[in-house]
Amino acid sequence: MSEALAAGSVIGILGGGQLGRMLSVAAARLGYRCHIFDPADHIPASDVASAVTNAAWDDHGALRRFAHLVDLVTYEFENVPTATLDLIEPICPIRPGRKALAVSQDRLAEKTFLRDLGLQTAPCAAVDSADALAQGLAALGAPAILKTRRMGYDGKGQVRLESMADCAAAWDAMRGAPAILEGFVPFSHEVSVIAARGVGGEVACYDPGENLHKSGILAETRVPARLTSGQRTDAVLMAAKILNALDYVGVLGVEIFVTEGALVVNEIAPRVHNSGHWTQNGCAVDQFEQHIRAITGLPLGDGQRHSDVVMENLIGDDLDRLPELLRAPHTAVHLYGKPEIRAGRKMGHINRITPER
Amino acid sequence: MSEALAAGSVIGILGGGQLGRMLSVAAARLGYRCHIFDPADHIPASDVASAVTNAAWDDHGALRRFAHLVDLVTYEFENVPTATLDLIEPICPIRPGRKALAVSQDRLAEKTFLRDLGLQTAPCAAVDSADALAQGLAALGAPAILKTRRMGYDGKGQVRLESMADCAAAWDAMRGAPAILEGFVPFSHEVSVIAARGVGGEVACYDPGENLHKSGILAETRVPARLTSGQRTDAVLMAAKILNALDYVGVLGVEIFVTEGALVVNEIAPRVHNSGHWTQNGCAVDQFEQHIRAITGLPLGDGQRHSDVVMENLIGDDLDRLPELLRAPHTAVHLYGKPEIRAGRKMGHINRITPER
Repeated sequence: MSEALAAGSVIGILGGGQLGRMLSVAAARLGYRCHIFDPADHIPASDVASAVTNAAWDDHGALRRFAHLVDLVTYEFENVPTATLDLIEPICPIRPGRKALAVSQDRLAEKTFLRDLGLQTAPCAAVDSADALAQGLAALGAPAILKTRRMGYDGKGQVRLESMADCAAAWDAMRGAPAILEGFVPFSHEVSVIAARGVGGEVACYDPGENLHKSGILAETRVPARLTSGQRTDAVLMAAKILNALDYVGVLGVEIFVTEGALVVNEIAPRVHNSGHWTQNGCAVDQFEQHIRAITGLPLGDGQRHSDVVMENLIGDDLDRLPELLRAPHTAVHLYGKPEIRAGRKMGHINRITPER
Repeated sequence: MSEALAAGSVIGILGGGQLGRMLSVAAARLGYRCHIFDPADHIPASDVASAVTNAAWDDHGALRRFAHLVDLVTYEFENVPTATLDLIEPICPIRPGRKALAVSQDRLAEKTFLRDLGLQTAPCAAVDSADALAQGLAALGAPAILKTRRMGYDGKGQVRLESMADCAAAWDAMRGAPAILEGFVPFSHEVSVIAARGVGGEVACYDPGENLHKSGILAETRVPARLTSGQRTDAVLMAAKILNALDYVGVLGVEIFVTEGALVVNEIAPRVHNSGHWTQNGCAVDQFEQHIRAITGLPLGDGQRHSDVVMENLIGDDLDRLPELLRAPHTAVHLYGKPEIRAGRKMGHINRITPER
């Protein structure tokens, strides 16, 4: 596809959670329609999508019909089953491409990929048995975190080890799944870079945001982040290096630990990212539109910011604060239309805007 | 409704053009779903709506089903047929209420209403015959504009008269429809106030924008407008007076001519307004969300602006400029998903953002 996807074309989105929902709105703003594929009972994106297929990831008939009805497929989460992608790919282009998914679906492959690029990551060891875990912990030292290699997000599938005594229970918690032990990185704070690469190889980055997590879930992102000018440049260059190495098309999030001596890559997400939600109220072109521009072959926005922003996630019963938040000045409220409030569930977010001076 | 409409409720929108489309996106952001009613072949709002009824305004069965499926009805245009509203009203609340529609559907009723409030309007005369037109033109002087009393928008149903010789042709152009002759107002520029009133009577206004028309269609709105501090206050107070007199709930647009001696009301629109599109990229709460907040009983945003904005409409083949506009810095592009470019058709708009200093 050397030309941009024609206006009125249909973009298929695998996953209709809040990210698919906000992608669908952004695509409409550019004149495209979205068709969501999601097996869930409730699909937040369905409120703002042109069409929805509610079927299982292994429903081959539904997947084939879906792939034939759309002009391009993208996704809102990195754990799309490989068999699903295998079925879609011969029918319809998938962006970002398979390489980014292969790398980001496996924490060990991701670490290896990043190190091969010359980037720093947390020290780690592959863990396939209780013995390997004990050896790994001896090598890396406590504390350390044992994570499943695949299908982890928002702190799920993770166990923290404080000493050798924790090994048995931690390995049991993996239920036999291949895992990776990550050593502790003494970081002062975490930042993330939301970056995009277009079909022609052009790259655009937003200014890094500074992330605050609570209970393993992102609570807040502030822009600008506390970074020296040199660190800011380095962080952006790291993201560009990753995008180019993956021959990536779309928006990608890179989480980076800021340590005394270096910037250490925590993980990459081959999709729009929670820590990029601030762009909705800080930039003319937000991360969702940037992703759609990238995958459709439209020119990328330049990532410039018109305002400083603090993004706060509304998780679970944070929603009780809604009346007050709706009254707060300079505050944009974004709800996801999820019917049921559950502990740890992302229900929405707010962006507090500070005009830049 | 003393409490806010519950999250997940369905808002019915009469009309699924670009205004309905942008209302639907704003409603979703607040956790509501939208059901669009529109008889058109192509319904731009359908790309981002939860449900669509594609039926005629006089399809009583379809209207009744629609009214029973939604929790609240609003509209994107003031010329909703009276019979349609009569049918919906016993089933489901309509916001803004009928009074605003009755006034704004008839240019003569509108002028009378405004004058009764002590506001200045263009001099005018009711015209029901060729003779009445001649008498009116003699009284008001040329140039003057003959307009149908009902169903006019974007310069449609309007004829400019330069002299008595134009009377016959102008009256013929009305095809017997009741009309109003409006005298010339020597204004330096036009501004508009986008104002909102909530269910509890609270009022919030955006800063006035300055409008530039081409061929009778809005081409550009700039914020801030050229107004003295006193004029700005007066314009906002005029809008508040109108909202209160109509016992209005929702967003309303007031077009005002700025003359040497006074602010003269051109017309009012009981809905979100093209000249308020700048709020999408200038404010935390835009006019579409403000309308949804007002009609659902949520707290209003305060109308504060974080950035100055120039809004430009993309009309007809202005869309040819799209590649350049997508590359322009500080520029947000909003397309309406209309499949066919036609002369005079609003295809989208852009907001050029200037961070406030």
